[in-house]
Amino acid sequence: MNWAKLLMTDCAAHLRPVNYSDYVENYMPNSIIDSLTKIVGAKSVLNAAAEMAPFLSDWHDRYHGKAHAVVLPATTDEVSQVMAFAESENIVVVPQGGNTGFMGGATPDATGNTILLSLRRMNTIRDIDVQNMSMTVEAGCILQNLHDITEEKGLYFPLNLAAKGSCTIGGNLGTNAGGLNVVRYGSARQLTLGLEVVLMGGKVIDLLGGLRKDNTGYDLKNLFIGSEGTLGIITAATLRLFPLPVARSTAFAEVRDVEAAVTLLHRLQAASGGTVEAFELIPADILHVLFDKFPNIPQPLKTRGAMNVLMEIASTNPASGNVDATGSLPLNQIIEDVLASAFEDGLVIDATIATSDAQRQSLWDVRENAPESHKLSGNVARSDVSLSQSDLAPFYAEMVAGIKEIDPTIWICGYGHLGDGNLHFNLVEGPNSNSDFNEKVPHLYELLYRNVAKYNGSISAEHGIGQTKRDQLASVKSPEIMDTMRAIKTALDPKNLMNPGKIL
Amino acid sequence: MNWAKLLMTDCAAHLRPVNYSDYVENYMPNSIIDSLTKIVGAKSVLNAAAEMAPFLSDWHDRYHGKAHAVVLPATTDEVSQVMAFAESENIVVVPQGGNTGFMGGATPDATGNTILLSLRRMNTIRDIDVQNMSMTVEAGCILQNLHDITEEKGLYFPLNLAAKGSCTIGGNLGTNAGGLNVVRYGSARQLTLGLEVVLMGGKVIDLLGGLRKDNTGYDLKNLFIGSEGTLGIITAATLRLFPLPVARSTAFAEVRDVEAAVTLLHRLQAASGGTVEAFELIPADILHVLFDKFPNIPQPLKTRGAMNVLMEIASTNPASGNVDATGSLPLNQIIEDVLASAFEDGLVIDATIATSDAQRQSLWDVRENAPESHKLSGNVARSDVSLSQSDLAPFYAEMVAGIKEIDPTIWICGYGHLGDGNLHFNLVEGPNSNSDFNEKVPHLYELLYRNVAKYNGSISAEHGIGQTKRDQLASVKSPEIMDTMRAIKTALDPKNLMNPGKIL
Repeated sequence: MNWAKLLMTDCAAHLRPVNYSDYVENYMPNSIIDSLTKIVGAKSVLNAAAEMAPFLSDWHDRYHGKAHAVVLPATTDEVSQVMAFAESENIVVVPQGGNTGFMGGATPDATGNTILLSLRRMNTIRDIDVQNMSMTVEAGCILQNLHDITEEKGLYFPLNLAAKGSCTIGGNLGTNAGGLNVVRYGSARQLTLGLEVVLMGGKVIDLLGGLRKDNTGYDLKNLFIGSEGTLGIITAATLRLFPLPVARSTAFAEVRDVEAAVTLLHRLQAASGGTVEAFELIPADILHVLFDKFPNIPQPLKTRGAMNVLMEIASTNPASGNVDATGSLPLNQIIEDVLASAFEDGLVIDATIATSDAQRQSLWDVRENAPESHKLSGNVARSDVSLSQSDLAPFYAEMVAGIKEIDPTIWICGYGHLGDGNLHFNLVEGPNSNSDFNEKVPHLYELLYRNVAKYNGSISAEHGIGQTKRDQLASVKSPEIMDTMRAIKTALDPKNLMNPGKIL
Repeated sequence: MNWAKLLMTDCAAHLRPVNYSDYVENYMPNSIIDSLTKIVGAKSVLNAAAEMAPFLSDWHDRYHGKAHAVVLPATTDEVSQVMAFAESENIVVVPQGGNTGFMGGATPDATGNTILLSLRRMNTIRDIDVQNMSMTVEAGCILQNLHDITEEKGLYFPLNLAAKGSCTIGGNLGTNAGGLNVVRYGSARQLTLGLEVVLMGGKVIDLLGGLRKDNTGYDLKNLFIGSEGTLGIITAATLRLFPLPVARSTAFAEVRDVEAAVTLLHRLQAASGGTVEAFELIPADILHVLFDKFPNIPQPLKTRGAMNVLMEIASTNPASGNVDATGSLPLNQIIEDVLASAFEDGLVIDATIATSDAQRQSLWDVRENAPESHKLSGNVARSDVSLSQSDLAPFYAEMVAGIKEIDPTIWICGYGHLGDGNLHFNLVEGPNSNSDFNEKVPHLYELLYRNVAKYNGSISAEHGIGQTKRDQLASVKSPEIMDTMRAIKTALDPKNLMNPGKIL
């Protein structure tokens, strides 16, 4: 495997912004702007550089692209007309939701022959069907708004990620977003019952609907989900809703090691009847960096253990929030029993269970402020990998040993969604290093992806491929898999006008 | 919509076996038999008519096809070689598992230019990974054997259907099988982490592995699952395992109507924390036909209510099987509380909770013997449709009214997996009819599919399309959807050699 090649993109992206060129004023013929204006109206066609700029660079400001115009359609029909126009003129279309992705998947390239299609104005909630526990919403709906509106109905939409205040459900589906609650409810894919997609050329594929079982032909829905806008534009979706949890129990435990954490997860799953909502791995270095930058967050345990877990279970049974005959909360009792027996077996060293909402929030503060503390700390080599649960412990051990060899001062912040085998193995520049961190980055990524390959892991658990990992994907997947993906791409987008240069 | 046309296949299949022609001895050139023998060995190439016969007709004996030979490879490599040979000679390949499908999906056509590829000999369990709660098994493994082997390890593989003693996991995945426990665990698709597929021409797509999150390109796995062997041959899969339930609580309740049943489901889901394992709708006519044919099965309630539900919840918490301080079983208490409050609200009229394994089995006997009682009763028009849960009640009411108009003596056995919105709306010839049931069948199907279309339901919830519903599929799906499916088929199987005439 050509490690040098596959590391190119990752490292380049890490080390400096990819400035393809400076912005230039739009050079598109007026007749084409006129055509787009006729479809969506003048207010919804942006082509001044300053107006377009926020749409043409990514969240981390690493990629900068060009476009003829940013077009903001308000309806599926308008999207369809834009796609028909784009195909007739051989113009590339790059779809974009909240523009919060990490892989440059929604940023066009430098050629400029692109319509940046923002779905933000398509933000209608078309239907909430309480009896079917589903809702049909348009792609531009902000995730947090979907949380709020379903909670008002006493229901729960469990997709939950850091960008929820600005990411859109269309982007979430385009990238098959994951987040904190996947261990119980699955990723975006598992939460989707139906989909509406516009193909290049303007054909609308209407797969909307609230059916839970439907074996009528190929699974087009899951093909479009996670295809990052390279096969079609997701304009709306029918999403599953769940009973709203009425009680939660949250605990923070120091565990013996990663293997003990996995065993603890299985015990908690069995004891709670599969109601583990979150199970996050938190190594000591996460705590060191965090409390350095956020000294006001309370430390969960007296000492900072080498390996820790933040866990939460939730119940939808109204009775589970009430104190029982013995004076304890049934949910807390489940966690307490599991932790007590794990303590006896040497899996758990110390633990605390939140007994108030404030305490619960303090525990979550540790997890939720970790990414920001890394950013404040300086240079970071970030990642998003997944492993089988049985491979997590040996993988973790090899990573730690390898990193110590490269530079023992690096903060090893390999944390994340243990319940899904998904680690964000962030490596943060330590305070006492006397060498250039950036020079070590290629070696750190080489170590990471060598071990991911060794343990049959994934190079992208939840962030997708975009342009950042495009070359890497081709180097880790078999030619048979790449050929099959390319055959599907060509079948659905023969002119390669749908978000080209992403994934494939 | 051309109802006459779409009913053709269904009705023809219902009324008489489709005997394309009598069996004839194999007319294949010896050189080709020699080639297949070189790949899999002489014992694994069947081409005498009597040996091939069981593979060339379907479970219901409605379809009969022809083939050059039945080939039984033992390894993925042998499958690959057969597929390379088939493509080089332009021979069709029809894959087959346990041959228990209802839609003729594994029966070849009458042309004879076919290799019937049986996966039965590929029945190795390659790996059970207890810590990852997953197993990798070959396509020919019998479903019941997978239940047994996982239970020995203290784990649970929840796919559960009537044919479990003879169906294979490969067939289950090829058709995205459903069954009794979908309401909690999902269909075959949701139970699959990884897949191994051989394409026409022999390329092997290795997507095996136990990852729970993997956003690296298009979702090929879900594309092959449910494609009924028209895109590739599934040779192995990595499947999710779950904690083994240690306690169950099972109840039978007469409900006010279908709407009340849906509300009861939601209440039980919330109260049990989403641990409803089965929730089956059982109308009065199911009971009338059943107790007529199986008088020894105990009647669950004193009277046969017009509409009833069989429900079961299960817990994996060892403590939930123990009697608590108040002397009751926690699981039974959950069902009891839900039923009591539903009784007060007029949703439930009468109910019984099983208090022993024998009682539980008696309740399940009612559900599990229903299909056999229909068969024993004579002519049946069977179906497999799904609706949104919010549409179940109006759909059901319109069906009952329409059937009464066609013939008030017909037993209306619209029963099934209410938790998934999936009804097997079986219509059984009544004892007092003085007209020809078969003459009414087209009218009954017309009524059924007219109402399915009206309520945006599915014509096939879990049985798939095969050849039975192929024409019907093309008539109910939009041209845009059909074109997209055809484009994918052509991209992966340009010569149309993979199970042609099925789905598309």
